[in-house]
Amino acid sequence: MKNMNDIQFGEGTFDELYGHKIIELKENFIRTEIEITSNLHQPMGLVHGGLYSSMAEAAISYAAYFTQDGTWVGVNNNTDFLKSSKEGLLVCTASPLKLGKRSQLWEAKIYNGDNLCAISKVRLSNLNA
Amino acid sequence: MKNMNDIQFGEGTFDELYGHKIIELKENFIRTEIEITSNLHQPMGLVHGGLYSSMAEAAISYAAYFTQDGTWVGVNNNTDFLKSSKEGLLVCTASPLKLGKRSQLWEAKIYNGDNLCAISKVRLSNLNA
Amino acid sequence: MKNMNDIQFGEGTFDELYGHKIIELKENFIRTEIEITSNLHQPMGLVHGGLYSSMAEAAISYAAYFTQDGTWVGVNNNTDFLKSSKEGLLVCTASPLKLGKRSQLWEAKIYNGDNLCAISKVRLSNLNA
Amino acid sequence: MKNMNDIQFGEGTFDELYGHKIIELKENFIRTEIEITSNLHQPMGLVHGGLYSSMAEAAISYAAYFTQDGTWVGVNNNTDFLKSSKEGLLVCTASPLKLGKRSQLWEAKIYNGDNLCAISKVRLSNLNA
Repeated sequence: MKNMNDIQFGEGTFDELYGHKIIELKENFIRTEIEITSNLHQPMGLVHGGLYSSMAEAAISYAAYFTQDGTWVGVNNNTDFLKSSKEGLLVCTASPLKLGKRSQLWEAKIYNGDNLCAISKVRLSNLNA
Repeated sequence: MKNMNDIQFGEGTFDELYGHKIIELKENFIRTEIEITSNLHQPMGLVHGGLYSSMAEAAISYAAYFTQDGTWVGVNNNTDFLKSSKEGLLVCTASPLKLGKRSQLWEAKIYNGDNLCAISKVRLSNLNA
Repeated sequence: MKNMNDIQFGEGTFDELYGHKIIELKENFIRTEIEITSNLHQPMGLVHGGLYSSMAEAAISYAAYFTQDGTWVGVNNNTDFLKSSKEGLLVCTASPLKLGKRSQLWEAKIYNGDNLCAISKVRLSNLNA
Repeated sequence: MKNMNDIQFGEGTFDELYGHKIIELKENFIRTEIEITSNLHQPMGLVHGGLYSSMAEAAISYAAYFTQDGTWVGVNNNTDFLKSSKEGLLVCTASPLKLGKRSQLWEAKIYNGDNLCAISKVRLSNLNA
């Protein structure tokens, strides 16, 4: 497993653009955060649905990249929106449901405080398999 | 149906942040575009998967908002990633698969030139039903 | 909440055809079982993927019908197949992820012994809302 | 490509149990049918949702098995239910959205006469990749 000290999404990436930060990364687990700002809203003043999908996609892709053998790319992102948010801190935790050599399935849950805002499954395919 | 001349995603929204533009909007149809820039990439230099999910989510939510009776919010976004992109113009077109009074299902296809990059289904629920 | 003593899927239904039995039903929870027989296989001798989808669909629809106000119908069934089965007892447990008045999201997990064979989300829409 | 004359789902399989028949199978296309009988209903007298999922799962798995190189198994089945059915003939047609060597995505549409009853995406993984 690669060294995961101080891993971040990297300068100039989409994750930097929307303020996505990695808080904790270890084998089969990642936790990331986004501080909600108004430029992450849709016009009704709520967090844009795509932000939850993006957060889950990135968190899971990073976790697989750094903790799994192989070169993993997302092939499907299925996100359910459970509760809307206006402000505060979004906290995403993700872990695997199925770790195969060719295909993996991970699940992310995104909370704002005690509220479960979104739940997402991301399927990854191994380009090296 | 509301007046759809010159409708855009609006200043200060997430869609403005990632450069999402509405090109055409009419009953049961929307076409939007994003010019790919490097700050929409993930670290491998490819368009971030979350961008496709966001593009579909916003395009479909807008189309439902402006062309359907009711107040529609996305409850699920299911996006399949079919082909990666590095640069160029992403073009999203969306139209409904099922128009109910309480629940609607729309599908978006996102192309880069002739390549179908992503296909997405978004389910919407009517807050007024 | 309706009386849930001795509730079963009913004579002459598809669930009876494939041997689906309700074991336990209480508020926000259902447990059902299928004893695997060879006529539930696909040609390679494994349990047919559609059986897992059907089991989750029925378990969740029943649980919503008997424990929730409203008339609930499934609008989406998203099932991931994690491990194949040949024989033994499939045990499905399901509970809600989100209980809305118009839309509900439930999750089912199907085990064969200690193996998680399938995980399924079913979204329900309330015909009375 | 294997010989596809007179291919059927086979004796003793789940598909036989629920009356699933292959009508046409050629490269990247399959058409199958089910004559609705009352033992395919749920208790409200409508076709059981799991039947649509099963029909799509089997049609797509067969089409991949007989027309694609590799050994393909379903890893995800995502079915949207658009219109209910009581009686008549269900006709399923399926074709690929993405043909990869490791992962494939197919889509099935299930009609009853002119009504689109269900639409389903099935993702397949190649055990030989």
